[in-house]
Amino acid sequence: MPPRPSRRKNPSSAKSAPIALLTDFGYRDHYVGVMKGVIATIAPNARVIDITHGIAPQSVLAGAIALQQSWRFFAKHTVFLAIVDPGVGTERKPIAVETHAGARFVGPDNGLLSLAAREAGISRIVELRASKYRLSNVSATFHGRDIFAPAAAWLSTGTSIKSLGPAMKQIRQLRIPSPTQRGKTIEGTVIYVDGFGNLVTNIDRATLDSFAASFRAVRLLVRIGEGAPMEIFQAYAGAPTGAPLAVLGSFGLLEIAVRDGSAASFFGLGEGAPVKVIVPT
Amino acid sequence: MPPRPSRRKNPSSAKSAPIALLTDFGYRDHYVGVMKGVIATIAPNARVIDITHGIAPQSVLAGAIALQQSWRFFAKHTVFLAIVDPGVGTERKPIAVETHAGARFVGPDNGLLSLAAREAGISRIVELRASKYRLSNVSATFHGRDIFAPAAAWLSTGTSIKSLGPAMKQIRQLRIPSPTQRGKTIEGTVIYVDGFGNLVTNIDRATLDSFAASFRAVRLLVRIGEGAPMEIFQAYAGAPTGAPLAVLGSFGLLEIAVRDGSAASFFGLGEGAPVKVIVPT
Amino acid sequence: MPPRPSRRKNPSSAKSAPIALLTDFGYRDHYVGVMKGVIATIAPNARVIDITHGIAPQSVLAGAIALQQSWRFFAKHTVFLAIVDPGVGTERKPIAVETHAGARFVGPDNGLLSLAAREAGISRIVELRASKYRLSNVSATFHGRDIFAPAAAWLSTGTSIKSLGPAMKQIRQLRIPSPTQRGKTIEGTVIYVDGFGNLVTNIDRATLDSFAASFRAVRLLVRIGEGAPMEIFQAYAGAPTGAPLAVLGSFGLLEIAVRDGSAASFFGLGEGAPVKVIVPT
Repeated sequence: MPPRPSRRKNPSSAKSAPIALLTDFGYRDHYVGVMKGVIATIAPNARVIDITHGIAPQSVLAGAIALQQSWRFFAKHTVFLAIVDPGVGTERKPIAVETHAGARFVGPDNGLLSLAAREAGISRIVELRASKYRLSNVSATFHGRDIFAPAAAWLSTGTSIKSLGPAMKQIRQLRIPSPTQRGKTIEGTVIYVDGFGNLVTNIDRATLDSFAASFRAVRLLVRIGEGAPMEIFQAYAGAPTGAPLAVLGSFGLLEIAVRDGSAASFFGLGEGAPVKVIVPT
Repeated sequence: MPPRPSRRKNPSSAKSAPIALLTDFGYRDHYVGVMKGVIATIAPNARVIDITHGIAPQSVLAGAIALQQSWRFFAKHTVFLAIVDPGVGTERKPIAVETHAGARFVGPDNGLLSLAAREAGISRIVELRASKYRLSNVSATFHGRDIFAPAAAWLSTGTSIKSLGPAMKQIRQLRIPSPTQRGKTIEGTVIYVDGFGNLVTNIDRATLDSFAASFRAVRLLVRIGEGAPMEIFQAYAGAPTGAPLAVLGSFGLLEIAVRDGSAASFFGLGEGAPVKVIVPT
Repeated sequence: MPPRPSRRKNPSSAKSAPIALLTDFGYRDHYVGVMKGVIATIAPNARVIDITHGIAPQSVLAGAIALQQSWRFFAKHTVFLAIVDPGVGTERKPIAVETHAGARFVGPDNGLLSLAAREAGISRIVELRASKYRLSNVSATFHGRDIFAPAAAWLSTGTSIKSLGPAMKQIRQLRIPSPTQRGKTIEGTVIYVDGFGNLVTNIDRATLDSFAASFRAVRLLVRIGEGAPMEIFQAYAGAPTGAPLAVLGSFGLLEIAVRDGSAASFFGLGEGAPVKVIVPT
């Protein structure tokens, strides 16, 4: 029976930074709720905002992409608590990161934080080792409750990141493969599948624009797997109901979608599926 | 990389109205979280309340019914941000609605808001066209983030609805079919299936009462599809475990349920299934 | 059309206790949202924290265990609103419980609150019968909205528990079976399956320690169903990817897991599955 987290002189009138949560803990259990209980005990005035807890279990890449797509839309000093942590209880380090943009990131050092933190400009990294900013009994399986949530809450209340543990020089990076160009073809890949079944690729707008410009192409076509070439529409509703299409989606990336349907189901494809952009002849 | 939403003189001590969210964005992705980030940046003091994000994808009718069933239970000046938007990026208009009851509604003009707004008494409608109350780059696929969330947040902080864009005369209406009476039978239909598998019909208490009164019936029976006639019980637990029953549920409408089970699975039926209420002979 | 809950002189500057929610209402419908609307109307300053709404439908035991695992991590005077209520609308009583630890519990008297309340030390029990602390029309199917949410909100704002209804002497208890020892074997059972597919047993650390000590065993093995004996690891990542293992998890109980996978799927087992701990020969 672990002891209640102690509150340690946090005047409840003080202003706390918002805390945004992203995990793969799902919605079935009490795990996220327990973390929020820990946060509310340490930082009773912090606004806690769920980004999502529906990241596919253990999918560090999906979590990293979702965090990268989110952080910029939050207030400047938000503390992001992100946990997708297949290595919990092993030698992977629990960390906190401060950035030039103001955002702070807390989570496991397995690449999950790397895409967002790199965009925000890393200015300091620490390992979460200070026992007085952890719960008093740390389990081997739930660092979200015992290490990460307390760290995020203390940061939110103004505790200096330096207090949380020793400095580190770098964090583990995650690489998203870049698309490649071969003649009149861009070869990319699906990197994220969303809940609507939209297939998000690694091909961004700038790549498409310069590719089109180099061939003076006024239109491009997109193929996924062995599928037929598709037009790039302005919006999902550009195609007829049930038809597949390509679109530059909210990620700023090329997506494959199906009007009022699921592209993942339609094509039977998901993360890693090959995508080609071609200049029509 | 869209710019951070600007905050524009919103003294953070000011009181904001609550914002209630209802979408079909699901729980897997960061989409809802990003909208909350935008809201928290513009209206840091607004209380944000999730109604649900589990509306079946693209089901405007289900979203409209859930909103209609919810709005009345919130504080008077709540801003309801509702998004089920298969036509995102097309000519359907983004709107905000003010009502005599005090509630405000923000979302796409596709009928989603119509059932709730009609109950609340529409007093003003505007099209969300003012660019200074949108994010600076509006995508074609995520108006929730770029148009709707900012509008709801600004309304919450006291911005006048008139500032958000030009007035409109009417919104698109959604029609829920009314039950019909043929002799000693009411013919209705299932309009909503909930997560427990309860089948909610379009037959309300008043219709049942006047029907029973006109035949001096002391009890009525209910049939769904080709199923056997069922009693109308006071509560789900009126029937034995695993047995189907009818009940006047929390919507104020006749529901078909299964004690400790799912009526949707039991009958293999869902939205649109025919339901009859009969006077037993 | 039930009337809006009245606010009745609750100065909105007043401090309210946090309210933590745990239900089996799921994430598809507006039911949880409506409860939050009721709470926000009565207690606009109360911090509302979701523990989970994903308890398996009607699973009172799973809800009771999740609540027991959670309450301790929340601030002292938190009001826990817990609803898994197959008997809604029948003679089972709606109750509120005060405890020596400070926590308050609101929900149906069907055992759901019993594991947590017993740990917290019950000091007072009342039946929620006072009509002025309910919504004015109480449905037979949604006491969460009509009875429980108002009670929790009023408690949060400082209303005395005695005002809510007459005192009761005891609440219904739920029993979790205890493991038994037969010679060199502990026989236990799976009592909770989490969203990762981890199989949590009723065997706690103290039981394992004294068992091992009594046989001077330096290691123990664990079997579930007809499965092969497994080592007890320090963390999930102790075993190779895809391999089953045992671990003392965050519940303080022995769990069966699969590294980066689901033990529930791997073994095809769930709640009630037999588990043995043996001294290797």
